[in-house]
Amino acid sequence: METTRVRFPDASIELAHGAGGKASRRLIEGLMLPYLANEVLAELGDAACVELPGTGGLRLALTADSFVVKPLRFPGGSIGELAIHGTVNDLAVSGARPLALVATWILEAGLPAEVLEQEVAAMAEAARHAGVRVVGGDTKVVEHGKADGLYVTTAGIGVVDPRVHLSAASVRPGDQILLSGPIGDHGITVLLARGELDLEADLTSDTRPVWPLVSAMIEAAGSGIRWMRDPTRGGVATALNELARQARVAVLLDEEAIPVRPAVRGACEILGLDPLHIANEGQFLAVVSPEHAEAALEALRGVPGGEEAARIGEIGAEPAGVVLARSSFGGTRVVDMLVGDPLPRIC
Amino acid sequence: METTRVRFPDASIELAHGAGGKASRRLIEGLMLPYLANEVLAELGDAACVELPGTGGLRLALTADSFVVKPLRFPGGSIGELAIHGTVNDLAVSGARPLALVATWILEAGLPAEVLEQEVAAMAEAARHAGVRVVGGDTKVVEHGKADGLYVTTAGIGVVDPRVHLSAASVRPGDQILLSGPIGDHGITVLLARGELDLEADLTSDTRPVWPLVSAMIEAAGSGIRWMRDPTRGGVATALNELARQARVAVLLDEEAIPVRPAVRGACEILGLDPLHIANEGQFLAVVSPEHAEAALEALRGVPGGEEAARIGEIGAEPAGVVLARSSFGGTRVVDMLVGDPLPRIC
Repeated sequence: METTRVRFPDASIELAHGAGGKASRRLIEGLMLPYLANEVLAELGDAACVELPGTGGLRLALTADSFVVKPLRFPGGSIGELAIHGTVNDLAVSGARPLALVATWILEAGLPAEVLEQEVAAMAEAARHAGVRVVGGDTKVVEHGKADGLYVTTAGIGVVDPRVHLSAASVRPGDQILLSGPIGDHGITVLLARGELDLEADLTSDTRPVWPLVSAMIEAAGSGIRWMRDPTRGGVATALNELARQARVAVLLDEEAIPVRPAVRGACEILGLDPLHIANEGQFLAVVSPEHAEAALEALRGVPGGEEAARIGEIGAEPAGVVLARSSFGGTRVVDMLVGDPLPRIC
Repeated sequence: METTRVRFPDASIELAHGAGGKASRRLIEGLMLPYLANEVLAELGDAACVELPGTGGLRLALTADSFVVKPLRFPGGSIGELAIHGTVNDLAVSGARPLALVATWILEAGLPAEVLEQEVAAMAEAARHAGVRVVGGDTKVVEHGKADGLYVTTAGIGVVDPRVHLSAASVRPGDQILLSGPIGDHGITVLLARGELDLEADLTSDTRPVWPLVSAMIEAAGSGIRWMRDPTRGGVATALNELARQARVAVLLDEEAIPVRPAVRGACEILGLDPLHIANEGQFLAVVSPEHAEAALEALRGVPGGEEAARIGEIGAEPAGVVLARSSFGGTRVVDMLVGDPLPRIC
């Protein structure tokens, strides 16, 4: 955790503050942490780890996310499904098997009941598939025009695998960076589903639970796993910039090794976007010790849906705090965090 | 838990579906439970109790609530404070000491940063006062006009006191009904704070954490406590109707014993509302075995803020499923659940 404080200089909240990039960091570190600071929150992980008193060190992961994706349904998924996967994945990349979820709904008066029913059904099916139960929740209704159809929030708990001790601080030069599969599918799919662009692509969201992949990797590499993150808003670039900054290391990417589908690459080229900034909902990054990297990658590739997992780079000592991407023709570029919000309401 | 299924017959969602009364019950039982049914959810408690594997029976309470109160600030509280109290109270009335919370924000683009900062500060102060940490969260931003300033969701976990085993099924005729203090303050305060009525009253919300009261009662009455509930939306009447229905007992109230401040009573008379239907954010109901009732009440009254706790009635065998209120002049009335939504967006 960097110790310099970022003040929040903005007079009002804008879409970029929700995009997961630099403006989000400014909001969280400049406006929220000064009030809510504690050692768990300051880790800014995907889920918080809380030790349970009287259990001899049992660690519980706790996380919550709100979902405001637009449109509510898109190729490959919908808001109800996303709300399950987003939360179980935050638990998974904290090394925790999802145990139970709770879901809250903010509904707009006038919402057709069948729209809600579809999403409740999608949530139930996703929960069943992920092997987790929705054990409670809450429903609020606001006046017509005061929400965009519906918003969902899910919170979840899981028990952290005792073999796993993840932290940016444990990351060392020489550690290997693994990625579970192709990036950008979710963000580009949702963007195209809005129909505002004259673009079509044969693409579906990657939304899925990643616990089966994480679980296999834990079996294979256990304590060799240093850090994990699911690169949702802000994409791979933002997640790795946060790692570089927190761990005070360099992240050295092999650009050609990063799996990106042609449809995503094509859409990004037309729209002037970097696939490394696009949100994913079914992928994760892992930093693994050099001795365990091969076994971890093998394990990932052995799980259905993990065939395209790849080693995409390694950790270096210098330049600390920076993400660099090298291409095969010798070029090197600095990969920054997401700035602004090219893709609002992607999750 | 009643076994008859309530079908959801409504074509669209309306404000009443969020009011906590009959329409909410129809939505949850008719539309949500058919998809999400499991034995924990079916309890429909304030928080879900989940047994932690490998801990010899340690029970964790898990809960989440969304807050959409309007206006954001009102005499005695604000949405940030309410979001802490609402969630720690759901844990408390499940017999669980609050351990950790997570908070998510849905912000509207254009929201003045100082409005958000006030609520983050209010949340932090309430958490400190309640002795609980906010260990994580999420922030989303939607376009201007797609939220009403801001909505907050909080989720929390707590460890259930091993002495406490609460369930509607354990409630027996002869059990005593306790109430922690005067009812209706929150709902009427928020209603008047909107300034839409030509009414004023010297009244503040009762928003506060109830764990200190619950904790004292657990020390005094332990396993004698059968059931607890915080009567938020839908008020005391709705909570007790749910109890009567689930436990298949009669709830017999002594109407004069129920503490109601004159300002609340007066406003209710003018507006044609029943104080028993008005939301509370700092009170709770407890059903206690006859042998433990006196000790429980003494304990409540001994805690600052519990001086007005009262025994407000008892459980009877017949008429099962019904709440009856008896007045001193001999009249008896049936107290129904809340129907419709006279007070939208109260929490």
